[in-house]
Amino acid sequence: MQNGLNLMKDLSIQSSTKIVLLVVDGLGGLPVDDSRKTELETANTPNMDRLAFDGNCGLLQTVGIGITPGSAPGHLGLFGYDPLSFVIGRGVLEALGMDFDLKPGDIAARGNFCSLDAQGLISDRRAGRISTEEGKKLCSLLDGMEIDGIKVIVQPVKEHRLVAVFRGAGLDDELADSDPQLLGVPPKAVAPLDPKAAHTARIVNQFLAQVRERLSSHHPANMVLLRGFSKRPDFPGFEDVYKLKSAAIASYPMYRGLAKVVGMDVLKTGPHLSDELATLEQNYSRFDYFFLHVKGADAAGEDGDFKRKVSVIEEVDRALPRILGLKPDVLIITGDHSTPAAMSAHSWHPVPCLLYSKYCRPDGISKFGESQCRTGSLGQMPASSLMPLAMAHAFKLTKFGA
Amino acid sequence: MQNGLNLMKDLSIQSSTKIVLLVVDGLGGLPVDDSRKTELETANTPNMDRLAFDGNCGLLQTVGIGITPGSAPGHLGLFGYDPLSFVIGRGVLEALGMDFDLKPGDIAARGNFCSLDAQGLISDRRAGRISTEEGKKLCSLLDGMEIDGIKVIVQPVKEHRLVAVFRGAGLDDELADSDPQLLGVPPKAVAPLDPKAAHTARIVNQFLAQVRERLSSHHPANMVLLRGFSKRPDFPGFEDVYKLKSAAIASYPMYRGLAKVVGMDVLKTGPHLSDELATLEQNYSRFDYFFLHVKGADAAGEDGDFKRKVSVIEEVDRALPRILGLKPDVLIITGDHSTPAAMSAHSWHPVPCLLYSKYCRPDGISKFGESQCRTGSLGQMPASSLMPLAMAHAFKLTKFGA
Repeated sequence: MQNGLNLMKDLSIQSSTKIVLLVVDGLGGLPVDDSRKTELETANTPNMDRLAFDGNCGLLQTVGIGITPGSAPGHLGLFGYDPLSFVIGRGVLEALGMDFDLKPGDIAARGNFCSLDAQGLISDRRAGRISTEEGKKLCSLLDGMEIDGIKVIVQPVKEHRLVAVFRGAGLDDELADSDPQLLGVPPKAVAPLDPKAAHTARIVNQFLAQVRERLSSHHPANMVLLRGFSKRPDFPGFEDVYKLKSAAIASYPMYRGLAKVVGMDVLKTGPHLSDELATLEQNYSRFDYFFLHVKGADAAGEDGDFKRKVSVIEEVDRALPRILGLKPDVLIITGDHSTPAAMSAHSWHPVPCLLYSKYCRPDGISKFGESQCRTGSLGQMPASSLMPLAMAHAFKLTKFGA
Repeated sequence: MQNGLNLMKDLSIQSSTKIVLLVVDGLGGLPVDDSRKTELETANTPNMDRLAFDGNCGLLQTVGIGITPGSAPGHLGLFGYDPLSFVIGRGVLEALGMDFDLKPGDIAARGNFCSLDAQGLISDRRAGRISTEEGKKLCSLLDGMEIDGIKVIVQPVKEHRLVAVFRGAGLDDELADSDPQLLGVPPKAVAPLDPKAAHTARIVNQFLAQVRERLSSHHPANMVLLRGFSKRPDFPGFEDVYKLKSAAIASYPMYRGLAKVVGMDVLKTGPHLSDELATLEQNYSRFDYFFLHVKGADAAGEDGDFKRKVSVIEEVDRALPRILGLKPDVLIITGDHSTPAAMSAHSWHPVPCLLYSKYCRPDGISKFGESQCRTGSLGQMPASSLMPLAMAHAFKLTKFGA
């Protein structure tokens, strides 16, 4: 176990206090005009501003200066797991997020139906985004093959997306993607990244050959691209490390999967923020720690839609009284990474963070936003320091040394 | 030796300059009302404020973000020793603080006289806080036993507190406490934490059985609880690492003990700040480095007494001209941890720090307090970086590399 987690394991104690981590996915941003204000700074957020005044602000670095985190390292950092030490494959995340029951030794891959042209070159990496219904039908054509004693389970995710799980003895996940992430080239044969994965690579390639045959008459979805081959990691869990009964409330599968990897209970919820809040309220007495995930800000950022991202943030602000009504001992509002609308993508910019409890030393900050966070008392800290700080403010850590 | 200390050992040089480290124990705090000012910010401290203006300010992190340090890690950090790498047992600290001459191989434990009821269950972990005089008498009943060739020395500390030292060949300190830290349960038998400590555990348990017999008629002090079994650690010393002739001036035993562990000379002094200052003045020519410890601020904080903590800080401020009269080349004012009166306990909040020398780049800070320290040029740095900085400002380090 990593040093920081060991220290948490040594010092953490059970208590009745409660921590709520509200992750506004992709929260950090950039200005797009002469106002020089980011999405968060443009948004009207009276509730966040009040919490900033009473709490502590800062900027989080997830992986390292200049490094743009994906969603998995972004969240692992917030959960206290150094993302350079704790790595989860994309295939595993996708599988866990569908509530797929991954067994130890299973290899999961994320898949796309794609279109091949007459020459066998990729003409559309997403097969024209076929409907979820169509994806489901096509997956049933591929599900359940058995190759050299290895079972291959193929499950639809959404639209053109699927998960393939290879189950059986002696599999290894050190495999390169078959998805070249380019158009006009053929899918790649899956290559072993380590000699010990050669056997698994042969099986995956045999599977892909059969997929091509079975889908040949199903253009535009006449092939599958696989990436992110991975085994479920064996991370120390939240209860073991922090002695927390923890719950995840997230309407998107990947975030639920991520929470499962660190041992959180995943609560059933609906697609809207109001559904997530109702789930929080209904389950508030049962857990010590809640991870509440809001996807909309990231989606708007990815779409380059500054205004929509502003309005998602304002919606979150309006929802805060419902959370505060529960009187959490510690409330954290932050993101897993920045997604500036100006870039239509995740970015490396550090993420604004607000921690509120009764035991915060005043910052003198009056508005929750990137500029003021830069001068806040959390400074610019590793995202993985957030959990120790939350635990401290919730009186869930004993003193170190006499 | 830890990396940072190795670098100090390589670069440090003897010189005639002098460093004074003034530790105001528990200095950092929290506001208790709408003034939003901590104890230090509330205190009238014209001398500290002047030093802050001429010197550099910052906030110290001792163990890590969110981690509340005990007194030992708090001080080790200020002395330049990473508290996660250098750990001292409580028994050793207590023994050293009484000027007990611990031999290599001795095992020291901290003890309490306690009260057992008729069923042998603990009814008072402190035996009604018997007088120091009474504690002394009872210790003399227990001192000097010999068990299987191991001598047991029992010395009174204060009121119900004592130190037990086990002396002889082949002892091991991997032992669990006999103190369950609970009422209504019997004292625990001392358990070995490692098989190699089984022999020592048997001896300690035989000792405790005899203690119970000898104290049977001495209710409320009819038993002893032991904890913090430990051997004196073999840390690299101040002279070896920094080439400093160093002295500690502290009226409380634990801080003297801590200073001894890193090889400082402990100077005799009285109970008041004025006594400590007189000791400093009388010995100023004999040493290069002085650690001056003021306990009152921590005690007031632990008592939840904001006003008293403010007045202790003001008393320290009024004493500063006596220290400045000696013209130290470097004067540092800081704490070993925060003890906010609002929490009546040590806390994780970083500790305000002021370093004054003629060679400080101006900070633009006009008041020594947590808020301004947050914007000071020392930033938020590990406490163990303070010694390199003090050494540098005292011209006691050579250049690194050609």
